[in-house]
Amino acid sequence: MKRVMLEIAYDGTNYCGWQIQPNGITVEEIINKTLTELLKEPIFVIGASRTDSGVHALGNVAVFDTNTKIPGEKISFALNQRLPKDIVIQKSREVPLDFHPRYCNSRKTYEYRILNSRFPIPTERLYSYFIYYPLDTDAMKKAAEYLVGEHDFKSFCSNRTQVVDTIRRVYDINIERNKDMIDITISGNGFLYNMVRIIVGTLVKVGLGVYPPEHVHEILEKKDRMAAGPKAPAQGLMLKCIEYPDLVDENK
Amino acid sequence: MKRVMLEIAYDGTNYCGWQIQPNGITVEEIINKTLTELLKEPIFVIGASRTDSGVHALGNVAVFDTNTKIPGEKISFALNQRLPKDIVIQKSREVPLDFHPRYCNSRKTYEYRILNSRFPIPTERLYSYFIYYPLDTDAMKKAAEYLVGEHDFKSFCSNRTQVVDTIRRVYDINIERNKDMIDITISGNGFLYNMVRIIVGTLVKVGLGVYPPEHVHEILEKKDRMAAGPKAPAQGLMLKCIEYPDLVDENK
Repeated sequence: MKRVMLEIAYDGTNYCGWQIQPNGITVEEIINKTLTELLKEPIFVIGASRTDSGVHALGNVAVFDTNTKIPGEKISFALNQRLPKDIVIQKSREVPLDFHPRYCNSRKTYEYRILNSRFPIPTERLYSYFIYYPLDTDAMKKAAEYLVGEHDFKSFCSNRTQVVDTIRRVYDINIERNKDMIDITISGNGFLYNMVRIIVGTLVKVGLGVYPPEHVHEILEKKDRMAAGPKAPAQGLMLKCIEYPDLVDENK
Repeated sequence: MKRVMLEIAYDGTNYCGWQIQPNGITVEEIINKTLTELLKEPIFVIGASRTDSGVHALGNVAVFDTNTKIPGEKISFALNQRLPKDIVIQKSREVPLDFHPRYCNSRKTYEYRILNSRFPIPTERLYSYFIYYPLDTDAMKKAAEYLVGEHDFKSFCSNRTQVVDTIRRVYDINIERNKDMIDITISGNGFLYNMVRIIVGTLVKVGLGVYPPEHVHEILEKKDRMAAGPKAPAQGLMLKCIEYPDLVDENK
């Protein structure tokens, strides 16, 4: 028996998110089904991040246990032959049997793309959030500074969550404009439900001049979802990578 | 009666190209149908470039004649309310009644995107050509120099064409790598059938080291389609813009 870790990229457009659910096809379901066929034993993966419907990933992480003789690092190749084209395993490798992708020290990095131009670009419509009114990225950068560090992010969490501890550490928020595309990269030790999308929705309000950058500090202090901006749409969001500093990678 | 010019962006993924044909939905067909409904008179556009199935556009051009009282520059807005999200009119304006988008001095610019990385990225699969083996972009740049200028591009033209004169002028080929993405931008006064995709397929062969950059000069001289490389796949190609230097734009 061994535990294998997968780094998974997917286009979330055609999936009802990561987690198995009764009302639509999910990435987890496709991976379980494909692994079960490939390895000829029932496989149930444990995912690191339950991305929402329409959200994309470049490096989501999942683990599973198997009795196969196929070496861990070869499973990605075999799996990619069978997966649909909108799901690609970037890497597979064996990890310790007690490694759990959620209950482990980790650094997650998300990217959110905003197309800020006079017209939407059809080829970007499924991978960015189109905003017509010019955004002041300098104001957005100032506002983002209030969010970096360890804070209670209760205001930036959808009320549907059952989580009790709403304190998280944001390591870095980087905002860059390249012509009409604004890339917001956020990394942290963990994120509450919808936290990245609510942060982006709030930064957009600052960028539009609805409120000044300093107001973001007040939003944090209110610890109330109603104080923050709206949740930005799913299609602009991509889970870029999850790093596990305590997990040794011998193949690296 | 007036003639109106449209600048049209589209995601070519779900269309059988630009030109109306019996076996599938095309961009031209959707635009004719939507304009006919909007203006309440039968409209038939004349397109500048008949892009192939799966090819994208940021600025294809089409004109049509109408008796509507709606000002030319307002038609884009009204049309965008009715078009599907994968087609967007970037601009509309009145042009002289004798302006024809194909029989006119013009400069067309295409962009071709190659994802040159160890793994395909699912969100890029419909908008780039994935190549695993590392491409030597310096060699590709050298090869491209042989193609710039006025040449007989018969070797770079699919045999299905009925065109007799195969001489065209390529103004510029620019090749840039940004991390794993290689952007090839080609502009010229006109392009033969599949010419950009055959140029890219040939440059890829140079990039892979199959033949040296100088060989592209021999391919040109042979005036034989069999001498050039294969046609690169459609989804990497985007018609960026078509400029008409002799057409005055009063709104600019």
